[in-house]
Amino acid sequence: MHRNEDKPKAIDLSHHLSNVSKARKTSPLKGLQRYAGKEGVVQMAGGFPSPAYFPFSELSAEGLIPDSFPLSPTSSSTSAFSWLLKFFQGSKISEKTTHLTIPKYPAGPNDLNLAASLQYGMAKGAPQLQKILDELVYKVYKPAYKDSVILVHAGNTDAWFKCVQTFCNPGDGVLVSEWTYPSAVATMVPYNIKPVAVPMDGLGMSSVGLRKILEKWDESTSGMPRPRVMYIVPIGQNPTGATMGIDRKQEIYDICVEFDVLIVEDDPYYFLQEAPYVPRSERSATVRFNNDEAYLSSLVPSFLSIDYQGRVIRLDSFSKTIAPGCRLGWFTCNSTFAERFERQGETTTQAPCGFGQSIVTALLLNWGYDGYIRWLRALTSQYQLRRDFILDCLGDEFHLKLDYETSGVWSGCDIYRAYDKAPADVAFNEKLGAIKPMFSLVPPTSGMYIWLQLHLENHPSFGSVGDGETLEMQLWIDLAEAGVLFAPGWMFSAKEENTDAPGEGHFRISFSNADFEVMKKAITTFGVVIRKFFEKQ
Amino acid sequence: MHRNEDKPKAIDLSHHLSNVSKARKTSPLKGLQRYAGKEGVVQMAGGFPSPAYFPFSELSAEGLIPDSFPLSPTSSSTSAFSWLLKFFQGSKISEKTTHLTIPKYPAGPNDLNLAASLQYGMAKGAPQLQKILDELVYKVYKPAYKDSVILVHAGNTDAWFKCVQTFCNPGDGVLVSEWTYPSAVATMVPYNIKPVAVPMDGLGMSSVGLRKILEKWDESTSGMPRPRVMYIVPIGQNPTGATMGIDRKQEIYDICVEFDVLIVEDDPYYFLQEAPYVPRSERSATVRFNNDEAYLSSLVPSFLSIDYQGRVIRLDSFSKTIAPGCRLGWFTCNSTFAERFERQGETTTQAPCGFGQSIVTALLLNWGYDGYIRWLRALTSQYQLRRDFILDCLGDEFHLKLDYETSGVWSGCDIYRAYDKAPADVAFNEKLGAIKPMFSLVPPTSGMYIWLQLHLENHPSFGSVGDGETLEMQLWIDLAEAGVLFAPGWMFSAKEENTDAPGEGHFRISFSNADFEVMKKAITTFGVVIRKFFEKQ
Repeated sequence: MHRNEDKPKAIDLSHHLSNVSKARKTSPLKGLQRYAGKEGVVQMAGGFPSPAYFPFSELSAEGLIPDSFPLSPTSSSTSAFSWLLKFFQGSKISEKTTHLTIPKYPAGPNDLNLAASLQYGMAKGAPQLQKILDELVYKVYKPAYKDSVILVHAGNTDAWFKCVQTFCNPGDGVLVSEWTYPSAVATMVPYNIKPVAVPMDGLGMSSVGLRKILEKWDESTSGMPRPRVMYIVPIGQNPTGATMGIDRKQEIYDICVEFDVLIVEDDPYYFLQEAPYVPRSERSATVRFNNDEAYLSSLVPSFLSIDYQGRVIRLDSFSKTIAPGCRLGWFTCNSTFAERFERQGETTTQAPCGFGQSIVTALLLNWGYDGYIRWLRALTSQYQLRRDFILDCLGDEFHLKLDYETSGVWSGCDIYRAYDKAPADVAFNEKLGAIKPMFSLVPPTSGMYIWLQLHLENHPSFGSVGDGETLEMQLWIDLAEAGVLFAPGWMFSAKEENTDAPGEGHFRISFSNADFEVMKKAITTFGVVIRKFFEKQ
Repeated sequence: MHRNEDKPKAIDLSHHLSNVSKARKTSPLKGLQRYAGKEGVVQMAGGFPSPAYFPFSELSAEGLIPDSFPLSPTSSSTSAFSWLLKFFQGSKISEKTTHLTIPKYPAGPNDLNLAASLQYGMAKGAPQLQKILDELVYKVYKPAYKDSVILVHAGNTDAWFKCVQTFCNPGDGVLVSEWTYPSAVATMVPYNIKPVAVPMDGLGMSSVGLRKILEKWDESTSGMPRPRVMYIVPIGQNPTGATMGIDRKQEIYDICVEFDVLIVEDDPYYFLQEAPYVPRSERSATVRFNNDEAYLSSLVPSFLSIDYQGRVIRLDSFSKTIAPGCRLGWFTCNSTFAERFERQGETTTQAPCGFGQSIVTALLLNWGYDGYIRWLRALTSQYQLRRDFILDCLGDEFHLKLDYETSGVWSGCDIYRAYDKAPADVAFNEKLGAIKPMFSLVPPTSGMYIWLQLHLENHPSFGSVGDGETLEMQLWIDLAEAGVLFAPGWMFSAKEENTDAPGEGHFRISFSNADFEVMKKAITTFGVVIRKFFEKQ
């Protein structure tokens, strides 16, 4: 409906289907289904319980209104958060809600219908949800080919698993960023499908590094065929927080066309694209965008927008925009792949939970497209507020010195190096020459993570007591003992063990969840622990 | 808590784990998790959105009360259903409901908590649900070993898929009944895991047939190792409707111990164990059981009750007792397997949907154990009513003559053979000798299916126009064209194609869903169509 009929159709990419996926038969019922849709047909074939026996006559919820959160990130001093604390402390006083109701037997044929939602057979999702997703995909992502298909799924984790089963054979490799979401790797490794680590820079996956790997691929030395599948989190990259611009996406896409690689775009943080970090002293509290359209225009386009062949499988999720417990998201991909995903769904998850599907649909129907965009815009603002707050806390705790990185993961980025703050009685500049940074970071412009690069090479015991990982874990345990849990960096490495550069150590800090006061305290604790750690012999 | 500490512990069955399952690493976070539970620890490791950003302040539902349906199956003349029709026609007049509410931030620490339900990390299920399932499993199924584990899952279809991945390697075979749930077979075949069809009789899978297959197994002729895994639907067997008594279960269990076979007990219809069919003329409308305890005692015990080794993986589902859209059920199995299922869950479905989990839990908390048993007891009565009704309809349409079956799937059963009713002007007994039955059936005593064995060998074109499957499909299409859909029998065959006895043909009729008046009309249509079909040359 929102599709541009002038666009090309997807090319045939069915040679990418795995042996398992090819062996999946078309549902035996398929040929019989033309009878099922006919008016007045009596369905006594399926094991459907009567909806009369569903022990619910109505499902309802109090949904927040789309403008529950302000559009302007307010000043990030802790005292200014009192209005927000009400949310976090469970007070309902300030929550403006709208009543959502899904009756079992609604009055109108197009109304949400609990009886239908709780029955089998909604594998493609409720028609109302389909329509909403269709509008979102075609207005925001703008697929570059005309016959793309939207198919609901039970969350991006399961969707990625379905991709692995659909495209990869045992012995295959999958291109991933050198630091990547560990669950994505854990999904494929048991099937003897190995991650192939592509170098990163400040924009995420390096196109130069990608080309090098594909051009120089040698099946005999690597022990696997040249990878045909890429897994990528282009926005709010997990764990580095990198944001990939459209130019880099185009470079990567073109290489994937050249080497016939499929791109699985796992993009849960897409709408959480924050403004560049501005230190507190220079920050103003203005509203970032004049309107929703300006917000949407500011978002880096999806790989879908340049995918004229249908080689992108985009995974969207409501986990970060509504709630993880929805276990609801959707594929956007070519029709051949969508049909295979649907068949796979029939023998695994079937349809996403009907309670979740119907209540999320009711909320989105109530909000409308504009309401949802308004919600996302404010949510982004909230994450920006949280990002600013935690960076401010780090700035309070450490001396953050701006530098420019010329190599490694943050190559090409303005980077902050964190030094111990000089004791009050010594002029900072005097002391500066004598100390070395404890960690570095690049303020992310999307997602919910800060990636700390620990300068373990500056630790007095470096090289004598053990390798980088050992020091990383020593610091992690010191911090955990002090009551603060960050994610240790080794979890995110896509490389074979023990190939990290010596002294490499990282923490991923999530700023998405903890209360502001708690974050402040955690960073203070981190300061105490890491200073003590760097003094240890 | 309800476990009998005197019972033995499960034996080590870890040699059954598939290569994929063995290769699944323990979660890298596992070793770090001992810090996560500590009081006052600040969690900034995971990508958890703040619950403040979940756009719901409350989830609620109108749940039916446990005694919404009567305990006595009332007379099955259509006119007597007016009270029931109100449910089926969507009238809420007679529905007594109770208001269920799950606040985002509840007052008490043990209250259901929407913020927690919608967050990541409920892979084991909400603690309140755990407790409910624990009570149900230990009171009703009574596992025969003491260290069994309950783990929620996203429905039995996905749970069976997880079993296949956890226990089977490519090239393996799985023991199934010769007629079986097609989706269970479709789950494994793409992975080159083949069904091994075990003969059936009136009690379901034949223990004699099973022993013969395992004893005589020859890896070189069959091309696969002796099967180590069995898939079985012992109650309301899909498609035959057979109910397996405890003696047969014990025979099968003992053979599985002898040959080291795991039993996956897929048991969605467990609570729907109906009384034997009594023809309408002899039927009384008395309440079947004096109390819930008598109802529970009447249920055939689960394989769990005799499993002293931990080789049974029981799959339970709320699909048939609450609603399919819940996509919620649970494994009961030994702790080694449960741990592997949980790891697999982490990289696929994660936790079942939080909306579904919390609303089902709220309903069950409201009902209590006794309320749920009351609900199940009435539900069974409803299915009995429906079964009686459809059999009565068949009795109105055909002359059902009672016989005793001595061979094949219904061996050992009283069986009804369906003859054309003699035209009104001919004495029935005179005509009887001249006609042959069109189909046979055994009234099921559990589940929701009637399995019709078509006597295609009595069709005038039998042997001349094609094989049994062709005639079966011809009749199926005739019936579909007339507006009635039954499930064609070939879908359920676990045997290699074209090995069926010639003339075999079946329909599975589901009596679970259609309105009573509609079922009546459908059977009348079936009568017209099949009579015409058997006259065709």
